Formats: sequence, structure tokens, C-alpha cells
Amino acid sequence: MAEETNPSFVLRSIKDLAFEDRPVPQLQDPWDVRLQVAQTGICGSDVHYWQRGRIGDFVLKSPIVLGHESSGTVVEIGSAVTNLRIGDRVAIEPGIPCRHCEYCRSGSYNLCPNDRFAATPPHDGTLSKYFLTQADFCYRLADHMSMEEGAVVEPVAVACQITKVGDVRANQKIVVFGCGPIGLLCQAVSKAYGAGKVAGVDISVARTEFARTFGADGVFVPPARPDEFGEEEWNEHVARVIKEQFELGDGADVVLEATGAQACIQTGVHLTKKGGTYVQAGMGRENVVFPITAACVRALTIRGSIRYSAGCYATAVDLIASGKVDVKRLITDRFRFEKAEQAFELVKQGKESVIKVVIEGYKET
Amino acid sequence: MAEETNPSFVLRSIKDLAFEDRPVPQLQDPWDVRLQVAQTGICGSDVHYWQRGRIGDFVLKSPIVLGHESSGTVVEIGSAVTNLRIGDRVAIEPGIPCRHCEYCRSGSYNLCPNDRFAATPPHDGTLSKYFLTQADFCYRLADHMSMEEGAVVEPVAVACQITKVGDVRANQKIVVFGCGPIGLLCQAVSKAYGAGKVAGVDISVARTEFARTFGADGVFVPPARPDEFGEEEWNEHVARVIKEQFELGDGADVVLEATGAQACIQTGVHLTKKGGTYVQAGMGRENVVFPITAACVRALTIRGSIRYSAGCYATAVDLIASGKVDVKRLITDRFRFEKAEQAFELVKQGKESVIKVVIEGYKET
Amino acid sequence: MAEETNPSFVLRSIKDLAFEDRPVPQLQDPWDVRLQVAQTGICGSDVHYWQRGRIGDFVLKSPIVLGHESSGTVVEIGSAVTNLRIGDRVAIEPGIPCRHCEYCRSGSYNLCPNDRFAATPPHDGTLSKYFLTQADFCYRLADHMSMEEGAVVEPVAVACQITKVGDVRANQKIVVFGCGPIGLLCQAVSKAYGAGKVAGVDISVARTEFARTFGADGVFVPPARPDEFGEEEWNEHVARVIKEQFELGDGADVVLEATGAQACIQTGVHLTKKGGTYVQAGMGRENVVFPITAACVRALTIRGSIRYSAGCYATAVDLIASGKVDVKRLITDRFRFEKAEQAFELVKQGKESVIKVVIEGYKET
Amino acid sequence: MAEETNPSFVLRSIKDLAFEDRPVPQLQDPWDVRLQVAQTGICGSDVHYWQRGRIGDFVLKSPIVLGHESSGTVVEIGSAVTNLRIGDRVAIEPGIPCRHCEYCRSGSYNLCPNDRFAATPPHDGTLSKYFLTQADFCYRLADHMSMEEGAVVEPVAVACQITKVGDVRANQKIVVFGCGPIGLLCQAVSKAYGAGKVAGVDISVARTEFARTFGADGVFVPPARPDEFGEEEWNEHVARVIKEQFELGDGADVVLEATGAQACIQTGVHLTKKGGTYVQAGMGRENVVFPITAACVRALTIRGSIRYSAGCYATAVDLIASGKVDVKRLITDRFRFEKAEQAFELVKQGKESVIKVVIEGYKET
Repeated sequence: MAEETNPSFVLRSIKDLAFEDRPVPQLQDPWDVRLQVAQTGICGSDVHYWQRGRIGDFVLKSPIVLGHESSGTVVEIGSAVTNLRIGDRVAIEPGIPCRHCEYCRSGSYNLCPNDRFAATPPHDGTLSKYFLTQADFCYRLADHMSMEEGAVVEPVAVACQITKVGDVRANQKIVVFGCGPIGLLCQAVSKAYGAGKVAGVDISVARTEFARTFGADGVFVPPARPDEFGEEEWNEHVARVIKEQFELGDGADVVLEATGAQACIQTGVHLTKKGGTYVQAGMGRENVVFPITAACVRALTIRGSIRYSAGCYATAVDLIASGKVDVKRLITDRFRFEKAEQAFELVKQGKESVIKVVIEGYKET
Repeated sequence: MAEETNPSFVLRSIKDLAFEDRPVPQLQDPWDVRLQVAQTGICGSDVHYWQRGRIGDFVLKSPIVLGHESSGTVVEIGSAVTNLRIGDRVAIEPGIPCRHCEYCRSGSYNLCPNDRFAATPPHDGTLSKYFLTQADFCYRLADHMSMEEGAVVEPVAVACQITKVGDVRANQKIVVFGCGPIGLLCQAVSKAYGAGKVAGVDISVARTEFARTFGADGVFVPPARPDEFGEEEWNEHVARVIKEQFELGDGADVVLEATGAQACIQTGVHLTKKGGTYVQAGMGRENVVFPITAACVRALTIRGSIRYSAGCYATAVDLIASGKVDVKRLITDRFRFEKAEQAFELVKQGKESVIKVVIEGYKET
Repeated sequence: MAEETNPSFVLRSIKDLAFEDRPVPQLQDPWDVRLQVAQTGICGSDVHYWQRGRIGDFVLKSPIVLGHESSGTVVEIGSAVTNLRIGDRVAIEPGIPCRHCEYCRSGSYNLCPNDRFAATPPHDGTLSKYFLTQADFCYRLADHMSMEEGAVVEPVAVACQITKVGDVRANQKIVVFGCGPIGLLCQAVSKAYGAGKVAGVDISVARTEFARTFGADGVFVPPARPDEFGEEEWNEHVARVIKEQFELGDGADVVLEATGAQACIQTGVHLTKKGGTYVQAGMGRENVVFPITAACVRALTIRGSIRYSAGCYATAVDLIASGKVDVKRLITDRFRFEKAEQAFELVKQGKESVIKVVIEGYKET
Repeated sequence: MAEETNPSFVLRSIKDLAFEDRPVPQLQDPWDVRLQVAQTGICGSDVHYWQRGRIGDFVLKSPIVLGHESSGTVVEIGSAVTNLRIGDRVAIEPGIPCRHCEYCRSGSYNLCPNDRFAATPPHDGTLSKYFLTQADFCYRLADHMSMEEGAVVEPVAVACQITKVGDVRANQKIVVFGCGPIGLLCQAVSKAYGAGKVAGVDISVARTEFARTFGADGVFVPPARPDEFGEEEWNEHVARVIKEQFELGDGADVVLEATGAQACIQTGVHLTKKGGTYVQAGMGRENVVFPITAACVRALTIRGSIRYSAGCYATAVDLIASGKVDVKRLITDRFRFEKAEQAFELVKQGKESVIKVVIEGYKET
């Protein structure tokens, strides 16, 4: 009988995708866990590596398996593992930090410079039959949760981190820039946390229409800038319009920016109330023209959010399990493992009707 | 006998200064206090109103008395006042908030939209014989403190607010941009708070030399940018140089920016360690080119600091009284009341050797 | 025509209640507001003053009007008031702080030593036709809210402060001791804030049954202590039973104690997870036997909650207006103004079926 | 040549100490480090295990090596270690957490239920020739620091954690109960952090005299309780006396309790200002009579402190290296390794003149 292999969906180099039979990963540490991957969502960063080969300092130099938004089933556990049993269905937190650096020790493992993050070069992702990780980065799904929901835990956890960084609290007025998956989930998570009013902003009417039915109490599509206005002046004006439309008084308690677009950043800063908090979660250009004096005299707190820290994944599972965040509605398209490239093509097109695309785990034929 | 008047140094309109005999202010509220002003420091904002007539939304539309960094002696108190006696020598916190708005009620009176801040149009400043304020904004000086030291409490309180906003803590590594009065005091206050290492940055060699003898453990003068470097690229490079020179490892725990210059802002953000805090206190251009993606992926906290909040003035008095911050060394030039215009001229010139200029209170001749 | 009077329900001395015709209060400050009281809830402290004449350092030395949980209609406003119009229906926050002390200035006006708190000796309460207060302590009711709901804003605000002190956050596991009005509202507010699991504890089966239908996910009635157990030992045991029953693992993230009973305090401390927060809101004996070593080695944070601070009243109004906290269900008994003494008698009896008793405002007959 | 052994000072069972030749520990993990122990301080808990065999839930069931306050020299490092070289002189943080539990992941490794803490049963301590630990729990000493100073890093780190838990800040008024090693260091660390006023309290005049020369601005020896006073009443009175003597106004900003005595706990709680923080660090009886109503109405924050968390050890090394905390003065008695039992006897006697006793590492004779 032939030895078992580990069918994987590999990014060999820029724009070069292929299926490969890789060796089945072996446990190396008492805390290790081997999972059979069940469902994997596609993230914009996956597509970015495929098309561009790099994000910031992370550069594709050798082939990597893609995918990092996955659920799976436990098939093997190390000797130290007590929180999992073989057969458990889990959501997979995709980064394993070093556990020894100053950041890990002080509770900010998302800032660990030595972590192994799935599908971030040079680390392999989850679009394989089997994936090796550690037990404390696997989160058991409630029995009534599907494996598809388990795959969407990842973007919910991103939204949990963003709202945590923004210290979103009950009864606050929140404005979220962006109605893609992360923006939508920031809106839904804020609402689940008891926010008093949540507004969603996007340039796509279709996306804002969806947002209105998902987590937003209201939505806003910024009008095009007339020629007679300068960019900074216009965006400050748009901020005033949003304040009036949503009766925000002096401004939003918290602004969550999930687009990275300069116009949204400028509008968002002007929209934040004095002493309020603005979170930068979207990534676009390295540098933007930024209203720094407004941030200064209004005593704003501006914080960057990246990945997820302790508690986010567990909270994300609970939010889905309790029905407070209905992620099923976000899954618009499904593909079998062997159709992974088509799934990536669909995401690349960026259609308004496509929210979250998932790829089923490898199955023997 | 002629009725007493209130000799005042007035900014009538842009570039038009004059002495006027105004009426002596009368107590109107049980908490009111009338002070005879003893010493007044000149601040850059005073000069700015004189030369430009506006700062941001505050526009000079009618004459105002200048000056807001003052000490004085209590000469009359209202019926509700219990913390002061006639004859007390005090530092004067120059803004009286409304005490009724959401910001005042929640402890952020520096954000009160209805406050009366001395020498901010349309409110009169302290360069009069008498100044009317309220009892809880007067801070008794220790017996051994001079009235000159009392006048310099104001910029120390500004530095206390900046370090409070930055949450400066013992044993941290702090970089301060700017070695003018506020920058120097941020360095000294950080040191008094037990900071492990404090570095001061300025383009003036003379100012950095002074900083080295005042509160900084080390200083840095950024080199001029070579033509072959872009601005953002160069400032990111300068950040690396500063990290190496001061052995900051991943970066400064806290950066305090007290210049408002775009180069300092860019360098400062890149210099802040992951998860660290950058405080914008300096004000220059409304908008700057800003490394927003670095702020995002490094999970920075960027906060604006403005004026002072509860506790800053009291702490500033204590820091001076205890000798932890030696403000006497900052006072480089002294003028009599009737020479106030010369004092303003001197500050306007911006000589490196001039740090803080004070004007004595009005005296009968 | 006879001059108008201010019919009031007065506690003349211990156990001596009477109706009096007092003078109509006159505005004295530009921020003053005169209200016609619409509905007033009775609080345990009102009954306590009636029966005992003192709570802690507050001693009844001269007659006071009772009542401090009220709604009313604006009938007169001072010249500085901009947030209210005559005819506005409002909830009344019953304490006016001095606005000048260190606590007021730093945002903790609930700790002001000089505040005037309704129905706390020597200050008159709200059970009059007219009540004089200040504009920023009046909160407009949503149009669809009744005046009865407006009166119950007060205990909701108490619960908002308790959950704020406990830093209750989404997805946490919360245990509340007490299922009287404050305990019930702590449960409901925690739930509205997105708590993952809320358990209510009370010795009354009837009250826990109500709690289960109101804000609690589960309830617990502590069993009687068998003779063979010491008190501390037993309460530690009960804590373990509660942990198991509600699957709290290492314990509750936050415990909110709203009874003041020693047994609840001991159980609550043992029930709090390592690093978790326990809030003391209930008041009973001055001193209790307390598991201090458990608090130390488990690194607990134990905080006292008293009254309400900035934001609590506004949040309470919003929680009721949005339907997140259904206070109508708490109002079990209603009395007309002239039957106020019967209302107090009913509360004094302490029946399990009585939750919140309200007294209608004075009406001309 | 005989194989090398690991001479160790072992607690075999209650009151049964012995020297044993144990095997030299071998690296088992890439992060492991083997140290040759240089100096070890004796802690009260070491003596407690020797005399009583248990502390709380930790019970001596089999022999353990004693000692956990040590410095040493790196003699062997694992393959993953980058922060240390052979020959480095280090302070040893004595607990290695599991790095996988919820507490470790969220930055509270001091609460890890699975840590291996030196000389806490069943884990061996540091009173051996060699000690095996992990690289990130070794802190390099400055070149000018002695190995004795390196051993005293441990209690300084305890004081750093206590002040961190108490959020001790510049210009605050701090009262520390206890003038033993931990109390003295809490006073010195508070002072190094810029505290405005630090008072030390102890029943030993000699210890308070030392405190006055070390970190305290003032000291207090509580008078004996007269018969006519009840205990709670007297301790509340003593709190008032301390407030007056040290001009604390409404009370101390932060109280650090390092004795565990009921009288100190009661006095300390009454001494804390409204809204202030009281830290329980001393351990005595499991339960004490506690002024819970005072804690409630004064809105106190009461926190337990245990061991040390991320940053404490590094800060402690820096405080000693910079001369801000002069631990050399605390070392009153020195013993050679083979005299370890005499060292323990000396500590057991509890003389006022004995502050910190250190035992030299094993040396070939």
C-alpha cells in the first residue's frame, strides 16, 4: 500500500499555482496537533501573494501552500495535549508565535517577530489535506456549527481584534469604513457588543445595501468630490455630512477603518469625536496625507490593529455559536479542493456580489 | 482719590500692541478669585496671535489682553473659596472650563468647547495688573519657590499632560522630538518619572547641547537629507540610526513629538516600537505625509495632546518644588511690564540662546 | 389668587412621615432647572432613613423630603441652559456635585464630598410637586418612553456604574449576587453588553425565577449550610458548585455583588477567576470575614461601586429606549402621591412579589 | 575521572535538611540553559516549607532542592538561544510557565497553573551547583553588578510587580505596610518611580529606622491598642493618625500591604483615598475581618499581587544597575554553600538586624 501523501495547493512563484503531493507532516513537539482541513476561506492577502508575490516585508522566495482561514478535524495529538481529542472539529488560528520573545510573554503574540503564520512566506498555509499546528491554537466548534462557519471564524477574529483595539463598548456610536468581509464583521461584532449605533461606509451601493441587512444601523455612500474642492477640504466636509446624517454630535466614539484608502482615513479622523478612538485596520499605500493637527487638538487616540491576540478566536467562535454574528450569510461561493484555482480567480475579479469564497478540504475520489 | 485701574498689555489687532487702562475685574461668582499678576512667561502662541491673528479656528476679532503663563498673589476671594487665602502666592492655570459639558463631567476639561482660556480670542490673558479666575485653577507655590518659577509652571504642566497622554513610565526608553521649552520639559519630566533612557532630538546643536545638561541622557541632531533619498525613505532611515545610536532595540517605548515638523513626525512614527506609543504635541501644518501602514502593522498607539487635564498643574508645582525639574535654568531673559513689547520682539526673533522670556507684573512707579 | 405651594412628602424624624406645603423652589443659577415631578421609585435607602434615620455617616438631623428615583417635566430653565426646553420629559440624576473639587475635576463626581444628593440628609429629595436641579443632570426621555420608565432610569444607572466598575465586556462570564432590583438590572445590563453567560444568585426561589425570565441565563439558590461545615469552608464549597453548574472553568470573569451579605461576599471572591474582577455594590455589615489570601494569590481586582458617574444616566436611558432593558416588567406596584406612606409600608414589608414601587407625582385634585 | 555531580541543598521532609549529590541536569529543549549558581538569597517561603512543609495548596510530598533567589553564570545553552552566551552572568527568574495556557497567552504568566517554580513543591530550587532553566528567564547583569546584587533582583522584581499592580505613578502619595525586604523594596521602587511621598509602617522601630535611610520619606510605628478600643475602631483611628502625620489629605493614592497582618489590612484600607488603590501582597491568615463597606462607598480598587509578570525582572535589573535601588545595603549576612543550614537557622530567628541573607554557590574545595 502506497504511503499517504498530503495533497496541497501551492503558490510556486508569482501567478504560478499548482497542486503538489507533499509529505504528511509529523508531530515534532508534545503540544503539536495534526488536523485534516475541512473548509478554507480565501483572503485578499492570499490573492495578493499570488498576483504580487509580496506584502510589505514578506516576500515569496520559495513555494508556499496558500490558505489560512480554515477549519478541520483533529487526527493526531501530541503527548502534552489535554484540550483536544481525536475527532474534534476545530477552527484553526493560523499563527504560532515563538512564545519566548518579549511580545509573546507580555500578551501581544500578534506582534511576535518570530511567529510562523500560515501562508505568509516562508510558511506553508492550510490548503492541504493535513495541517500541523499546536493545540492551543485550535478552538473547538459548537456541535451545531458547520465547518464552513469554522472557516469564517478567522475574519470574525480579525474583527474582534479591531474592536478590542478600538475598545468598542456598549452604547457607543461606531462608524466603520468598508463593507467588505472585515468591515461587515466589524459592524456585526460592534453590534453584538451592544454598540448604540453602527454606521457602515463604502463606495459600493451594493455592499452598503448588504451591510444594512447585516450589522449596520445605517449606511453611507460618499458622494464624488466636485472639482472645486481640494481633497483634504472635501473629506473634512464629508465627515461633517456623516456626523449630521447619523446624529453623531461631536463625532463617533470610535471609527474603525477597514479600507486603507486615503479618503476614508482623512474622513475618519475628522469624524472621530474629541478624545475618541480611530483604528487603522485597512492597508493601502505606505504613506498618506494625514490630518495630524486635527488629531492633536482633538486629543484623538489612533491605533493600528493587526491580526488577533489572546481571546479573539475564542470570542469569535462564541459569537458565531450564539447566533450573534451570522457568518453563513457571508459565504457566497463554494468550490471543491480541485477547483481551488477557480476560487482564486473569482476572488481576484472583485465582484460586488462575492463576499466570502470557501474551498472544501481535499477528499479522496 | 482716583478709582483704581487695571493696566493691561493688549493686542488690538494683528501687529498692533498697546498698553491700556482697563477696569479692575470684579468677582461675579462665589468661586471667583482676583489675583495680582507677578510674572508671565511668553509662549509661542502669544507671538503667533500677535503676528498672524489666528491659530486654527481661534481668530482675533476684537482686542485681547495677551499672556497666559503667569503667577500671582491672591488679593480677593469669593464666598465659596476655602483653598486660598488673601496673600497666597499661586500659579495660574489659564483655562476655566464650563464644568457642565460632557467633557468636563468625564474628567477631560481640556476638551471643553466652552472654556475661557486666557489670551485665546475672545478671552483676555494675564498681562494685566489684576486677573480674575476661579479658586480651583490657582495652585499655591511652595514657600521657597519664586514667582518666576510659578510662571513656568505652565509649560511644565503642558509637559506633564504630554507624558500623561503618552503614559510614560519608569524604566521606559523615551525619545523626545524638539529641544525648545516644551521638548526640554518633556525630557525632564520623563526623567523625573523614572524613565530609563531619554533622548532629545533637535536640528539646533545649541539646543541639544542644553538638553544634554537638562533632562536628556543623550541627544541627536538629524543629518541633512542627501539628494538621492526620498523624504519618507530618509526619515525611516534616520529612525534606524537613532535606534542604533541609543540602543533602542525594536524602538522607543514612547515618542513625544513637540515640533510639528513633518520630518520629525515621520521619523518618530518609524522609531516607535511595536505596540508602543507616539504622542503628537507639536503643531505645524494641518496635514502631513504620514506612514500609516507602519502605524497599522506595528500596532502603534498615536495620541494627540492638548493643554492640561486634572492633576497636571499640581504635579508641575510639585516637580518644581521638589527640585526634580529645575525650571530656573530655562529663564534666559527678563523684562519689566512696561517693556513687554521688547520681550515679544525678542521671542519673535527665535534666537537659539533664548529659551524662556518672562515679564514682571505691573508695578506702581 | 393664592400663591402656589410645593406639596412635599417629608420625613420629619425617624418613623415620622408627613405631607407639607413647602415654598416653590426658585432658580438661583443660570444652569438651574425647575421640574414638575412625574413618577418616583422607592429605594431601599429611602426606607432605611425612614426606619433608622441614618446610613453610614449620613444622619437625619432635620426634616428632609424623601425620594430620589424620579422623572419629571421641565417647567422653568435658567439663562445658560441650552440642552432643555420647557415641556421636555426627563429622567433626573439625583446628585449635583460641587464641580470644583479634585474628584469632580477628574471625572469622578460620584466621589464628590460636597455634592447635594436628593434625599440624603440634609438635602431634600424629589417627592415634591416641584424639584430644582441643574440642566446637565436632566436626561431627555425618548418619546415612546413612559414617565414610569423614566423613574426607573435611576436603578438602571446604578447597574451601569456597577458594570462599568467591573469592566463587564462582551463574551465574559458574569455572576451576579442578588436578584432584587439592582441585581436584576446588573444581569440585564451585562446581557445587553454582550456578556456570554450571566448567572443570578439569590436565596429567594421566587426572585431567581423572575431573574431567569429577565436577564439571567441561569440562576442558583445556595443550599443551607450543614452543621458540619464552617462558614468560610462552606462558602468556598458553594463557589465550586457554582463554577461547575455554570461551567465557569477557573471561575467567573466578573462577579457583581449586590447583596452585602457575608456569605455572598465570601462565595463571590472564591468564585472569581484568577486575574478576574469582583465588584462590591451591596452594603450590609461594616466589616466582614473576608478571604484575603485567596484575593492575593489569585491576583483579583476587587472594586467598590457607589452611585453613578459620567455617562451612566445617558446609557441607562438608551438601554431602556432601545428595549434592551425592559424595566416596565420591574414595576409591580403603583401609588398616587397622597398614598405615598402606603407605598413606603409596602416596600418595608419586603415581599418577594414586590420589585419596584412607584409613586405618581402630585396632582391638583 | 569521576562523572560530575550536582551538589544540592535538599529539604527531604519537614525540618529535615541535607546535602545530596544529584545528577547534573541535561538540556532537553532548544531554549534550555544550564547555569552555575553564584549567589542565592533566602526567602521567608523557603523557611516556611522547611518548618511547615506547605504553603496554601503547595505541599511538600517528596524532597525538593530549596532556594529561588539566585544569580548564576551560563555554562550551556540550547540551539534556539540567541540572547545569551556561555559565560554571561545573569539573574534567574525562578518560574517557567507552560506558555500554552490562557494566562500565559494573555500576558499573565504569573497566574499559570502549570508553571515550574523553583523550590515550590514538587519543583527543585536553585541551591545546587547547576540549575536548568530557559533563556528568556535569564537576565544579564550589568558588568558592574555583583552576583550578590544579582541574587537580590528577585525581591526587587517582587516589588516591581506590587508597584505595577498598584499602578504607582510619579507624584503620588504611597504608604507601604511592612519594612522587611519586600516592604523596603516597595518603598525604594516607588521612590525610583517618582512617587511624591513614601511612608513606611512597621511595628519594629529598628526596621522603620532603616527604612527612613533607604526609600521612605517618613515612617510610622503604630501605637499599641488601648483596651477601650475595639480592633476595627482602633485601626480606623490609626488610619486617621497616619493621614494627619503625613499630610495625606483624603488618604494615600496607593497603599501597598506587605505584612498580611489583619491590623495592617484594616488600617490600610481606611487609609486609601477615595478612588485609590490598595494592593495586598503580604500573606498571613486565610481570612481576615475586612472593612468591606468602606471599600465600597470609597470606590476603592483592591488588588492582589503575586510573583512577577513580564518586564518586572528586566526592570529590577535596571533599577539596581542604575543605582536607583541600592540593594547592597540589604545584604546583612553571607554564608558559604556548605553552611546553608546555618543561614536558614539565622533567617528563622527573625532578628530585626537581619534583612537579607545570601548563600554562595557551591565551589570545589
